Amino acid sequence: MSTRRHFLHQAGLTTLALSLPFANSLAQESSQKDQRVLRVALMGLGSYATRVAEAMKTCTKAKLVGVISGTPSKIELWQQKYGIPPQNCYTYDTVAEIKNNKDIDAVYVITPNALHKEHTIAVAKAGKHVICEKPMAISSQEGKEMIAACKTAGVRLLIGYRMHFEANTLDVVKRQRAGEFGKTLFFQGLSGFVIGNPSQWRLNKALSGGGAMMDIGIYSINGARYLLGEEPIWVTAQESKTDPVKFGEGIDETITFQMGFPSGATASCLSTYSLNYLDKFFLSGTKGFAEMQPSTGYGPIKAWTHSGPLQHPHVTHQTTQMDEMAALIFDDKQPLLPVDGEEGLKDLYLVEAIYQAVKSGQKVSLPR
Amino acid sequence: MSTRRHFLHQAGLTTLALSLPFANSLAQESSQKDQRVLRVALMGLGSYATRVAEAMKTCTKAKLVGVISGTPSKIELWQQKYGIPPQNCYTYDTVAEIKNNKDIDAVYVITPNALHKEHTIAVAKAGKHVICEKPMAISSQEGKEMIAACKTAGVRLLIGYRMHFEANTLDVVKRQRAGEFGKTLFFQGLSGFVIGNPSQWRLNKALSGGGAMMDIGIYSINGARYLLGEEPIWVTAQESKTDPVKFGEGIDETITFQMGFPSGATASCLSTYSLNYLDKFFLSGTKGFAEMQPSTGYGPIKAWTHSGPLQHPHVTHQTTQMDEMAALIFDDKQPLLPVDGEEGLKDLYLVEAIYQAVKSGQKVSLPR
Repeated sequence: MSTRRHFLHQAGLTTLALSLPFANSLAQESSQKDQRVLRVALMGLGSYATRVAEAMKTCTKAKLVGVISGTPSKIELWQQKYGIPPQNCYTYDTVAEIKNNKDIDAVYVITPNALHKEHTIAVAKAGKHVICEKPMAISSQEGKEMIAACKTAGVRLLIGYRMHFEANTLDVVKRQRAGEFGKTLFFQGLSGFVIGNPSQWRLNKALSGGGAMMDIGIYSINGARYLLGEEPIWVTAQESKTDPVKFGEGIDETITFQMGFPSGATASCLSTYSLNYLDKFFLSGTKGFAEMQPSTGYGPIKAWTHSGPLQHPHVTHQTTQMDEMAALIFDDKQPLLPVDGEEGLKDLYLVEAIYQAVKSGQKVSLPR
Repeated sequence: MSTRRHFLHQAGLTTLALSLPFANSLAQESSQKDQRVLRVALMGLGSYATRVAEAMKTCTKAKLVGVISGTPSKIELWQQKYGIPPQNCYTYDTVAEIKNNKDIDAVYVITPNALHKEHTIAVAKAGKHVICEKPMAISSQEGKEMIAACKTAGVRLLIGYRMHFEANTLDVVKRQRAGEFGKTLFFQGLSGFVIGNPSQWRLNKALSGGGAMMDIGIYSINGARYLLGEEPIWVTAQESKTDPVKFGEGIDETITFQMGFPSGATASCLSTYSLNYLDKFFLSGTKGFAEMQPSTGYGPIKAWTHSGPLQHPHVTHQTTQMDEMAALIFDDKQPLLPVDGEEGLKDLYLVEAIYQAVKSGQKVSLPR
């Protein structure tokens, strides 16, 4: 022993040898930080959950490890398809038990809109971080309760704003913030698609909380806010319904809406369940413009400005979203475009103002 | 003589010889119809008149032969530039004398908006056809008086809707009418440019009758009507003003407006004097779409549908307009898109409804 120490001392390596354990610990910690993976359970196994699960296969920081569903056959299918262990499978009745599951960090709530509040609060109470699909809820009151519940439980609440992580979108946002378009005075958002199956939950007011606006129109609301970089101070809106059978009471088919901003900018938007070919953003400023089409679809986003096309390659949005959300949770990284509960709440306030404007036929003022 | 007749008879040519005068008369009439040229005097020698004069150089059915201006130096310049004979030059005070000028068929009124009524009526009283630049007047009341005056005088009143003769525009209109886009449920019109010189008549309410809406916004009103092929039943509108110095009382800078149609279709439009890059029409139907950009600018119109680009070559709009208007006047040809006083009046009713909607903040219903 003395010989070895003597040798080390002679070689001037004592310090190195002594510091090795500390160095190791540092490396380990840093590597842990980099390699830490967000272990996610999906709640609500509909078609969007499948899309998220497929996208997560190529995530590096997030991993699908569990499922929560009211349908046993779906759970079985998902177990087989995604290798979910039995101990990570829950029903809506047993969701509180996730509290004791050390292998699940977060739950992504992808149930119908009207269930988001109940499910988010249940997950928060189980001590797990919540990722909740947009719209975060069917009313701002619900949204506030969800934010409060997550705060009380000490868990994060993130809303599934996948566009907030999309490279072309972020590029346009950065150019707008840098003044590349001059004073941006006009945003146009066209968000719509022809909705299929009339018996789906999206056309059931009790589950969806509304029609096209709650589903697809909210993209134009959100897009106006992130592309103009300010919050609206007034809203006007007009409804049009060509199919009152398919689109019953409380289910909006088509709404045009406008938002006014403190700078004097205006947003003019369309939300519809009756037209395809509608996935366009246009931002116009005194020095230039940006156009995005498709602007929010699941496929590649195409964006161009007055100086030419942007070229960011397509990455499946949900893959980026889940990796970035893992980074948000573990590293407390501040994203350029927030995805927290407050962000979700802002859109809900606007949805409510739009519905109010439709009903009253009046301009609805919003607090600054 | 008898020898000649006999010869003709022998040659079996009597019938031919006898029918020659009639045939000649027919040919002459037909050739007269084809070759008849609308001899036009321009009233108001501003920049748009120059554009029209240049365009008319390549007209085959219309010819610039006279001028009417309040500025003697302009008249002199135009005489030299366009070879206008002295007897075809008038001032606003001598316009009644055109009555006695057999070399002028029509007068194109290109004076500031607020003077259209007075000038149109003066020309009508002089017994000449009137072509009046859009907007036809600054109020529907004025428009009605102009229509009545032209009717009384037995002259035509045509409004300078150059897009109504543009090949790509007409192609899209025909496709819409043929149902190629399915049920067209949405029209979007973005019409705007950054207006220069703040002392120009367009920013003087007394001369222009309004701001961007009267000038450029009316293209979106008109475009919505011809691309949807129906007349609005309601209008809503919102104003935004970022520069109250440049855009004084009664001069609208930016207005977003919406129109609802009997079919359930909605139009969502922007009219602005503060942004460039705004010259876009978008028509969305249940089976397809059409997009036009530029949609109303002076240069080539670019149009494409869900099935690809339209390829009609560019012809200077005012050249086509003046040739087609000559055909309208001489042959009483019915155009696909009307350019008569009633058409101009329809747009004015909508301009007024939009201003009313801005002022009241209410939806303005229009008579069906």
